[in-house]
Amino acid sequence: MSTQAQNRYKADLREIRFLLFEQFKLGSLLGQAPFDSWGTDEVNMVLDQAYKFVCDVLGPLNQSGDREGCRLENGQVHEPSGFKGAWDALYEAQYKTIATDPAHGGQGAPHMLQVITEEMITGANTAFSMYPGLAYGAAEVIQQFGTAAQKDRYLHAMMFGKYGGTMCLTEPHAGSDVGSSRSVAKKIGDGKYKITGTKIFISAGDHTMAENIVHLVLARVEGAPAGTKGLSLFIVPKFRVNDDGTVGARNDVNVGSIEHKMGINGSATCVLNFGENDDCIGELVGTTENMGMSQMFLLMNGARISVGVQGVAVASFAYLNALEYAKDRKQGAPMTSWKDPTVPRVAIIEHADVRRMLLEMKSKVEGIRALVMKLACHQDNVRFYRGKDDEKVAYHQGQVDLLVPLVKAYGSDQAFRVCELAIQTYGGAGYIKDYPVEQAARDAKVFSIYEGTNHIQAMDLVGRKLGQHGGKNLQAFVSDVATFVAQNDKHPVLGAAIKELGGAQEALAGMAMRLLMWFQTGRIALVPLAANRFLEMMSETAVAWLLLDGARIAVDALAALPAGEESARERAFYEGKKHAALFFARNVLPNVKKSAEILALEDQSPLDMPTDGFATV
Amino acid sequence: MSTQAQNRYKADLREIRFLLFEQFKLGSLLGQAPFDSWGTDEVNMVLDQAYKFVCDVLGPLNQSGDREGCRLENGQVHEPSGFKGAWDALYEAQYKTIATDPAHGGQGAPHMLQVITEEMITGANTAFSMYPGLAYGAAEVIQQFGTAAQKDRYLHAMMFGKYGGTMCLTEPHAGSDVGSSRSVAKKIGDGKYKITGTKIFISAGDHTMAENIVHLVLARVEGAPAGTKGLSLFIVPKFRVNDDGTVGARNDVNVGSIEHKMGINGSATCVLNFGENDDCIGELVGTTENMGMSQMFLLMNGARISVGVQGVAVASFAYLNALEYAKDRKQGAPMTSWKDPTVPRVAIIEHADVRRMLLEMKSKVEGIRALVMKLACHQDNVRFYRGKDDEKVAYHQGQVDLLVPLVKAYGSDQAFRVCELAIQTYGGAGYIKDYPVEQAARDAKVFSIYEGTNHIQAMDLVGRKLGQHGGKNLQAFVSDVATFVAQNDKHPVLGAAIKELGGAQEALAGMAMRLLMWFQTGRIALVPLAANRFLEMMSETAVAWLLLDGARIAVDALAALPAGEESARERAFYEGKKHAALFFARNVLPNVKKSAEILALEDQSPLDMPTDGFATV
Repeated sequence: MSTQAQNRYKADLREIRFLLFEQFKLGSLLGQAPFDSWGTDEVNMVLDQAYKFVCDVLGPLNQSGDREGCRLENGQVHEPSGFKGAWDALYEAQYKTIATDPAHGGQGAPHMLQVITEEMITGANTAFSMYPGLAYGAAEVIQQFGTAAQKDRYLHAMMFGKYGGTMCLTEPHAGSDVGSSRSVAKKIGDGKYKITGTKIFISAGDHTMAENIVHLVLARVEGAPAGTKGLSLFIVPKFRVNDDGTVGARNDVNVGSIEHKMGINGSATCVLNFGENDDCIGELVGTTENMGMSQMFLLMNGARISVGVQGVAVASFAYLNALEYAKDRKQGAPMTSWKDPTVPRVAIIEHADVRRMLLEMKSKVEGIRALVMKLACHQDNVRFYRGKDDEKVAYHQGQVDLLVPLVKAYGSDQAFRVCELAIQTYGGAGYIKDYPVEQAARDAKVFSIYEGTNHIQAMDLVGRKLGQHGGKNLQAFVSDVATFVAQNDKHPVLGAAIKELGGAQEALAGMAMRLLMWFQTGRIALVPLAANRFLEMMSETAVAWLLLDGARIAVDALAALPAGEESARERAFYEGKKHAALFFARNVLPNVKKSAEILALEDQSPLDMPTDGFATV
Repeated sequence: MSTQAQNRYKADLREIRFLLFEQFKLGSLLGQAPFDSWGTDEVNMVLDQAYKFVCDVLGPLNQSGDREGCRLENGQVHEPSGFKGAWDALYEAQYKTIATDPAHGGQGAPHMLQVITEEMITGANTAFSMYPGLAYGAAEVIQQFGTAAQKDRYLHAMMFGKYGGTMCLTEPHAGSDVGSSRSVAKKIGDGKYKITGTKIFISAGDHTMAENIVHLVLARVEGAPAGTKGLSLFIVPKFRVNDDGTVGARNDVNVGSIEHKMGINGSATCVLNFGENDDCIGELVGTTENMGMSQMFLLMNGARISVGVQGVAVASFAYLNALEYAKDRKQGAPMTSWKDPTVPRVAIIEHADVRRMLLEMKSKVEGIRALVMKLACHQDNVRFYRGKDDEKVAYHQGQVDLLVPLVKAYGSDQAFRVCELAIQTYGGAGYIKDYPVEQAARDAKVFSIYEGTNHIQAMDLVGRKLGQHGGKNLQAFVSDVATFVAQNDKHPVLGAAIKELGGAQEALAGMAMRLLMWFQTGRIALVPLAANRFLEMMSETAVAWLLLDGARIAVDALAALPAGEESARERAFYEGKKHAALFFARNVLPNVKKSAEILALEDQSPLDMPTDGFATV
């Protein structure tokens, strides 16, 4: 097999359909408002077409985009060759507006379908996907918070690829500490402001694919309070937009430089200078100042989910390529006769350690995809029950809020881990650029950093989300797991694993109580030391639960399959779901109880440590 | 601070001196045969000079070598600019022969000093260090197994930088499965052979720094048995060497291509074609055919230790740079007033999560360095007791054998983990090429693959090393840990942590018994599934032991320090050693018992899994 063929984007549509229809029961929502126009056939058609689209159009530009990268010439960023054609094709196919409200020209599909199309777009070409991804996020903010005039001027253009978009938060001295922003907005009347400041790490900050780029810029109106509560959000287009919607003169926003990075080289990461010539005109999003952070949070929430999707996308790409390589690559004798040099060599997938790595990858990829799907399912239920059942809306929205940091942080951390395993599966070939997994690892490393580092996610979870609504969201989560355990812990095949899940759920609940106790007894210093581990505990509990729930469905399906050769593929598929769940429950899930024991030691050596004790250099 | 300054190589000489003199008692060996000419002053002088040398000469070429890479032109590989000067300077300074027997022109220093100079050379420029590293390893094989004539012809030239060297094992269809080699040697008389075959992934396979390159090539003499036992090792110089020692005509060995890799870009990784024109002349190493694997194992053993040294070297480089960045970079408010936007921003090292990451990095870097040092200490004791005390030689050699796979596999796995933490400590800056840690991660990824993948190491440990000498080596290791625990588990500061170590040691010994039981009861299929985790358990036990032993020394030293400002640096240093050990014991060591529990489940889902169940693609 040529390496070319091995670098293809791949998706497992059977597994995706299992999640959508068998586990998360998308069918029960289809055909009803607000999903009236969507039936099973439509969903399946989109899956097939989107898969073909990303394989044909985006995948072939993944490696070339990495090698070529972006360049800045005369103040204009040039994206890699071919990206412009892909951009046009993507918007023509309307995948970016698949879940957008039909009132805004979208197709109103369920989020469950949207996250899968996004996974395919991202997995086929992560760097490319950043450009339409940022445009979409920025458009959502204008859709939610913009005035009617702003929507008229920008929204449709941003939704359909005429304009790009960005989110401009980070400054040289304000990364995680957004509130330290020094960018300034000076009111000049008519809802307009002059913006000055420098923003860094701006993804999709400039390119030639769209005729305009709408920057959403956090800045402080002169005289506004310090910190995050004095920040406002501004629409700052690269080219000013005339009242008739045509693109006018260049605005005073300039690309200072672009970063050279470990990965996602096809994505332009820009330093943007606003108002160097005191002529950068922006307009407030909506009509009220100092709402910037809450407006930006809509975008950031979406972006954080997208990062989790990026995680599963790149991890799945790495896994499926490693799997193909493992089936193809001959090396070594079978275990049963490993000392006999004369027996025929076998494919490396026959070796136990390779199978172990593959099953760890599979269980993580499919477990995190299930976690993303669960989040999207709650989002769809929010839409479904809105105006019908407030209690259900509150429950589902609460689970969305709770799961966002898990999806972002666990999804990104484990994506990198999966890429590492994929490289190891390839052996030496995994380290060289002829094969796609080293790029996957380089691309994936940023996921744990941007859109709020994973520690920011962990603090969001333990500092905000656990206590939301008096702890009700967490209680509902824990109780959902407990209900599953109570109903299934005598399962003939999965019972022992489900009991282990019960233990994990109790350890998790206990640890949540301990965190509460730390808050209440003034031991808040322990919280940030424990936050990342708590997020991991909760994620592993959630992933094990979803995998075991899938395995339960798989075991039932196996029993119902007719015997014989024609069921062989389905049988193998369901066996795979079952074993992936068992593997995760036996090899990963025990971490949860161990982590609770570790956190119960209340170690604070990092705080007790004198700063000069780290090293004598 | 400029990014330039932040990319400097750094070593913590105080920590290194602690290991050498306070923990591993190098002083007790100095001044005695075979280390007669080495005293404390000489060791300290080498440390200072080597540190200055690598900072001045090798460090400045680390980033430029990565960016420039190697190129193949007209069949000749060109290494990055500046490497030739560094090569000459390195050999002039004689760091590569520091531990070599004075009979061969070396300085006969202890291995404990050698591993530190190697750490510095590698940490300052990993890609560069591959070239002299391979030359040294190949020279050692000739020193050990070559004929007198071969030593005359090659040894001095290879030891002193006139000739380079390589090890040529891997072929397109024979990586981990070395015995499948298809390279052929045809006897042509006079101890000479015609070699044909293709070798891949040959590090330092070609360059312009030396006037000749001596390839050590595994090949099968026509008619020799299949598998590893039919392999012989050949000296195949790039240029033939005349009897008078001058370099003659070109040999028929050619560079087919060079690989483009994720990292160590300054190191040429070559495809070498031997005998394309049926004119590649080699000579057997020594005089006996079919000894190739055991001869190569000398080289591989040294190379595996070197990979562990590479691990700690790159991890230390990443850690110390992340530490400097964390002290320098201002971001966010102190924890005590984190909601107040008006308080001055603090250095990020003040944040709990950054301190946690730094302490995890420190404990792993220093723990693995201690593991490397322990191995070197055993090597020195083998040399010290040779001819004086056979029992002691056997004990120390046994520990060397046992520790090699731990140093290689745990050192390389954790090096990558430390680099990942270093990137996370930098945040977005860690992902961009202005800072050195993304390169560190890219360079480090190969360590888990080459010189025997980490699974090969794990199988070497459980399949060979545990049973060596009837299990005596492992018993001695376990008993050494148990003695330490018994003597110190009531320690006023470290007692609880040392009790945890006792639990880990028992879990480890129990798991070794379980492995034995699997071998004895025909359940050998479980062994490769458990091997990597067992290696990790043993490594974490060893590292915790060595860190706690160091902490015990530190606590005593703290008690003996005079009060007052003049002891502040030393106090901070010893506090650092103490807290790093406590952190590791509380946050990492509990993995050992958990892993034993997991392995006791005897999960074999990767084997039960149907191959078609991995995915439906």
